[in-house]
Amino acid sequence: MPSPEYREFLERLAEIASASILPHFRRQFIVESKDERRFDPVTIADKAAEQAIRDEIAATYPNHGIVGEEFGTIAADAETVWVIDPIDGTRSFISGLPVWGVLIGLVENGKPSLGLMAQPFTGERYFGDCTSAHYSGPGGPRQLHTRNCAAIDEAVIFTTSPHQFSATDLTAYHRVEKEARLARYGTDCYAYCMVASGFVDAVIESELQPFDILPLIPIIEGAGGIVTDWQGNPPPDSGQIVASGDARLHDRILARLTGD
Amino acid sequence: MPSPEYREFLERLAEIASASILPHFRRQFIVESKDERRFDPVTIADKAAEQAIRDEIAATYPNHGIVGEEFGTIAADAETVWVIDPIDGTRSFISGLPVWGVLIGLVENGKPSLGLMAQPFTGERYFGDCTSAHYSGPGGPRQLHTRNCAAIDEAVIFTTSPHQFSATDLTAYHRVEKEARLARYGTDCYAYCMVASGFVDAVIESELQPFDILPLIPIIEGAGGIVTDWQGNPPPDSGQIVASGDARLHDRILARLTGD
Repeated sequence: MPSPEYREFLERLAEIASASILPHFRRQFIVESKDERRFDPVTIADKAAEQAIRDEIAATYPNHGIVGEEFGTIAADAETVWVIDPIDGTRSFISGLPVWGVLIGLVENGKPSLGLMAQPFTGERYFGDCTSAHYSGPGGPRQLHTRNCAAIDEAVIFTTSPHQFSATDLTAYHRVEKEARLARYGTDCYAYCMVASGFVDAVIESELQPFDILPLIPIIEGAGGIVTDWQGNPPPDSGQIVASGDARLHDRILARLTGD
Repeated sequence: MPSPEYREFLERLAEIASASILPHFRRQFIVESKDERRFDPVTIADKAAEQAIRDEIAATYPNHGIVGEEFGTIAADAETVWVIDPIDGTRSFISGLPVWGVLIGLVENGKPSLGLMAQPFTGERYFGDCTSAHYSGPGGPRQLHTRNCAAIDEAVIFTTSPHQFSATDLTAYHRVEKEARLARYGTDCYAYCMVASGFVDAVIESELQPFDILPLIPIIEGAGGIVTDWQGNPPPDSGQIVASGDARLHDRILARLTGD
């Protein structure tokens, strides 16, 4: 059971990240690509935020491990490891859209225990500790609960982009998409928080990195949902992820993805 | 030249619409489908907002025309016509995402003259009068300017969903998408405002309705951009729309769409 101290620290890290990022949002800036084969943008805001978070963790908990998107891994086998994606959704960020977020999670003894998604522009925060999940922001604070939806043909499903699937994974994904009531694209971490909030029924993705998904697991589980890979195993052994609000829907999606 | 009175009235209509819609955002509600063949959602929020706007127009300017998404057309051939899409992006709205908007525009003597996009959850407003465009909301007010980007392979392009194209239009769209630096989905009116803001270079869509695009034209043109159909004609004779921040890019996109 994580201590309340860690939750407070998580909120403090989100403040630090927001202060680093917000001055760069909707400003003209230089965008580098991390990958020469495809456009994988990284900005000064990603780097500044992650560095500020890492400095604060190192100063406060020097023995803890850190896994971050921009600056790699320190002591990943430590008992307590912080997982950071300073801007999940950099493509949305550089396009001026508010559907990116700061992801910070805590992994204790190999299991995700706390997670936070902060959206500094809208002032939204989604927090979870695997047993409960909470929202704060416009409209006022409230507890988060996933909604009941057992059938794929009644489900609203999201994925960040069909471009992010391999050809094989895209074929599998399309088996679910063609049955769904509504399929939408383009949201990164934001769609997972909408699963936790009970407005979206499932997110299906592949090729995610551990820092993309680990901070979201305590939020979705805390709201009553479930997150596994496409084979039903705990993330992040594989980058293929399904997050669902209803375990019955989850089983049906996994069956379609694996060819049933 | 539209009178300042109309601009104030536009802002008042946006307040009225926001007050009708915001209590329904992120609440559980009944979603109807307008089309039995595909899921085309409409909510009580769409209807309540449009009715409230229409009542206000009828009370203030009884001789003006009205074109609205939910309740049809009154005196479309009047000298002054108000064009309303109470929630542009209902699919985003029902999914809890903040990338929908209230669209209200004024058409005078057949030409769009004023337009407003309001996002009540974030508090953003994008206003244009064909010669200038302005933002108000988080981060403070500022004038809007499109950015220079002449080449498709340097451009960030958006479309709401590849599912909304016919097979022929999708083939044409893919000729542009495969060349673009970054192609993203899922934003409705929001992406047009990001073209006006200089963070996105073009939006390409087909099967738009007049109320989807007319209110956005004075914003994009006021910021220095251009909006035509795929043949280069003024909207909305066709539902095929391209909105670009740079006229050189616009010409190249039209050439690709029409088969060059």
